[in-house]
Amino acid sequence: MYSEAAIETVLPALRFDADGLVPAVAQAATTGEVLMVAWMNRDAVVETLRTGRVCYWSRSRSRLWRKGESSGQVQRLKEFRLDCDGDTVLLVVEQAGVACHTGRRNCFFRAMRPDGLQPFLEVETDPALLYGSDLLGGPAA
Amino acid sequence: MYSEAAIETVLPALRFDADGLVPAVAQAATTGEVLMVAWMNRDAVVETLRTGRVCYWSRSRSRLWRKGESSGQVQRLKEFRLDCDGDTVLLVVEQAGVACHTGRRNCFFRAMRPDGLQPFLEVETDPALLYGSDLLGGPAA
Repeated sequence: MYSEAAIETVLPALRFDADGLVPAVAQAATTGEVLMVAWMNRDAVVETLRTGRVCYWSRSRSRLWRKGESSGQVQRLKEFRLDCDGDTVLLVVEQAGVACHTGRRNCFFRAMRPDGLQPFLEVETDPALLYGSDLLGGPAA
Repeated sequence: MYSEAAIETVLPALRFDADGLVPAVAQAATTGEVLMVAWMNRDAVVETLRTGRVCYWSRSRSRLWRKGESSGQVQRLKEFRLDCDGDTVLLVVEQAGVACHTGRRNCFFRAMRPDGLQPFLEVETDPALLYGSDLLGGPAA
């Protein structure tokens, strides 16, 4: 998607934390909704800018996480932005299907209401369809 | 803004990191633009929900940071959302003036272009008006 020379202009501007990571906010290009926040290391940034397909760093699995690799919830990069101090990335993306692993449009589906925290987005896609029953404790066939 | 009982429903759902912090994305209620990302600790979350005025934790100054306390760039909370795993907050806010300390509308004013990273938002407010000349290396009068 971008040349190596273009990518080289981004890397010195990034300020990774002690773990070599920056938070990355994914925003839907079409609706402007904030879909999710995940983390990127240097390799995830480079791969995302090269390929145009969003790649994060999974802190729980300690490996690169090509969003949608098992679920199909792929994110295509429309624009890559960096904040004033270089320690947060904003990814404007085209989201295939729903963004959240719970099957909701985005991960921010709980909001404060007068009585407290409440879910307000419906599940649109059965998580079993996203990940397969084996990841949901189904029979180990 | 919210009762203590309502606030008590949020705190167990939050998963703070090893430093006791969560990233908080501020999004403009009117335009949907992502304004900035900062950090909140437990006290910042509680104060924000109590008062309706956004309060972060300043990692550089190691103290609560009531956004706009010196610059006037106050954020009024319109909605407080939490993501699926409770480790990121989304603050839908009404932003007084510009959000970025550089005087731009938001902090994500650099974007990838074919030739590399480029600023694309104009400075709308002179930073000297936001913070006063003493903070910009002016004469120590």
